[in-house]
Amino acid sequence: MTRVYLDHNATMPLRPEARAAMVSAMDVVGNPSSVHAEGRAAKALIERARAQVATAIGAEGADIVFTSGATEAAALACGGRGLHGAAIEHDAVAAWIDDTLTVGHMGQADVTDPARSVLQLANSETGVIQSLPDGLAVVDATQAFGKIPVAFNKLGAQMALISAHKLGGPKGVGAVVMRRGTDLAAQIRGGGQEMGRRSGTENVIGIAGFGAAAEAAARDVSDGVWQRIDEIRNILENALVAAAKNTIFVGKGAARLPNTLCFSSPGWKGETQVMQMDLAGFAISAGSACSSGKAKASRVLRAMGYDDATAASAIRVSLGPETTQTDVLRFADAWLEKEQKFRVRAA
Amino acid sequence: MTRVYLDHNATMPLRPEARAAMVSAMDVVGNPSSVHAEGRAAKALIERARAQVATAIGAEGADIVFTSGATEAAALACGGRGLHGAAIEHDAVAAWIDDTLTVGHMGQADVTDPARSVLQLANSETGVIQSLPDGLAVVDATQAFGKIPVAFNKLGAQMALISAHKLGGPKGVGAVVMRRGTDLAAQIRGGGQEMGRRSGTENVIGIAGFGAAAEAAARDVSDGVWQRIDEIRNILENALVAAAKNTIFVGKGAARLPNTLCFSSPGWKGETQVMQMDLAGFAISAGSACSSGKAKASRVLRAMGYDDATAASAIRVSLGPETTQTDVLRFADAWLEKEQKFRVRAA
Repeated sequence: MTRVYLDHNATMPLRPEARAAMVSAMDVVGNPSSVHAEGRAAKALIERARAQVATAIGAEGADIVFTSGATEAAALACGGRGLHGAAIEHDAVAAWIDDTLTVGHMGQADVTDPARSVLQLANSETGVIQSLPDGLAVVDATQAFGKIPVAFNKLGAQMALISAHKLGGPKGVGAVVMRRGTDLAAQIRGGGQEMGRRSGTENVIGIAGFGAAAEAAARDVSDGVWQRIDEIRNILENALVAAAKNTIFVGKGAARLPNTLCFSSPGWKGETQVMQMDLAGFAISAGSACSSGKAKASRVLRAMGYDDATAASAIRVSLGPETTQTDVLRFADAWLEKEQKFRVRAA
Repeated sequence: MTRVYLDHNATMPLRPEARAAMVSAMDVVGNPSSVHAEGRAAKALIERARAQVATAIGAEGADIVFTSGATEAAALACGGRGLHGAAIEHDAVAAWIDDTLTVGHMGQADVTDPARSVLQLANSETGVIQSLPDGLAVVDATQAFGKIPVAFNKLGAQMALISAHKLGGPKGVGAVVMRRGTDLAAQIRGGGQEMGRRSGTENVIGIAGFGAAAEAAARDVSDGVWQRIDEIRNILENALVAAAKNTIFVGKGAARLPNTLCFSSPGWKGETQVMQMDLAGFAISAGSACSSGKAKASRVLRAMGYDDATAASAIRVSLGPETTQTDVLRFADAWLEKEQKFRVRAA
């Protein structure tokens, strides 16, 4: 039986368009900072990708500063600024904020001072989408970009954080999107690449893959691919709702990413579920991938007011463009079988 | 006429072994932090590359912290530490040091307090190799690693900076090599990857390429490939010495990288030479690639005591494993023709 990958919020398989762009970029020899023909060819690849990313995220006229991923983008955009934020933010953002904003039971953060705050557009664990206040300092669009329409120029934010591998590009590439004229102190210094905002010879192959993946992801969004995913996610959710009466569906009823399903079976540890489902042939997660090695309750669910037992027993199933109805129904069967066994043992 | 690439110190073409490893890694779907099979497969690729890099640089038992390149490695290893250094260091290191160490005419830096100093193993512009004092805080091995034998465990340094693309791996990957037990404050924070020293989902494809390239590069070094390159470099140097009487050969007589030739024709601007040779079909550089867009005298040559006119008229020719004697003799002919024309116009 082939395995079923249902952990697209952790990372997505590489899109064919990204693969082709990366393989092609492997033949480009030069350093993008070199002035000779080989260098200019490498530079052209980067600038093409920059335009592709800008178009895909509706940031025409904004600056795109390529980084090694959304985590570095968060450090660059948020580090040392004393921004306010909520406990639902990803670890990469949480590292730089005061964590004081309150969060409602449906996952909505209450931003009081947008110009001094960072807020995610969508949560990686629950999929809950925020209504962004106007004038945000930083929006973390990492999980939303490529799954729902995102137009940076209409978000009203000064900067956005994005990542390639969440939309089918390679891991290890991301960017800060900035309104033109915004200033930013470089953290990685040296050769002055990326207009002095982020030094270091550019990840040419990875950036080429990011550009191609962003373009393909934006096309998928326009073409309604994620509406089909939304329908399949709802089929899965309904199957589980009907059969697992003790299960809590987190964020159900809130605006959510079309591919994300987060649910908790109190008492049955999330990590145990992940391991059992892995053995059964399904890749899912408990909490975000970065902290999934750690056996602790989801910080996101605790911020939403769930108790520790519920937060520690949550799992996330996240679908992608290649996920089929058969995949999710197989998952539902396998998970419900384990769930019944757990209930019998726990009784 | 096919072009001749003689700018290997700026960046090297991707080695076939790196390409194969990267293409293969494109099929690995998971996030290395995920605990399921897909995640473990991605993690295994990273750990294999870590072992390959450690073996290639003679750092068995040391820690390898993967970064987005040597520039980030320099920020991580040197940032905020107030280290001493010399003006010959690369911009990525120079950004973090006090620049007070003196430099001799043959390019040797005088390190007075090794435990509080950073020093390059080889200079990117001149190829000059340093005699490292014991107990250095940081050695920048970026340009040396892959061209001469480097055994981290015998260098006596606490940390080393290295880069993939200088030895035939992809751009955008590097590492800090650290003696086990050394502490380091993370600058990019979040998910806690790389044992908490550098967060962010790893550049799996790039890291796989780094590992394969490091292994292949170390094999080339053992197999004597760079001795052949050294001979070809000397053929080029001798051809130029014989014909261009006004030319100054920088670092000639010092221990140098086998592939690097730096020479100055005072009055004939380095950037002009680069552009003329580019049109003639040869990729070379003036100064380091990162700053090659800027029309200023080489900081490295000024530190070695050369005047501004000499420093502004220097170029670097850097050979690689695929460079042939025919390539360098074609270059010598083309360059000498332009040089004669320049002398005639300047007379």
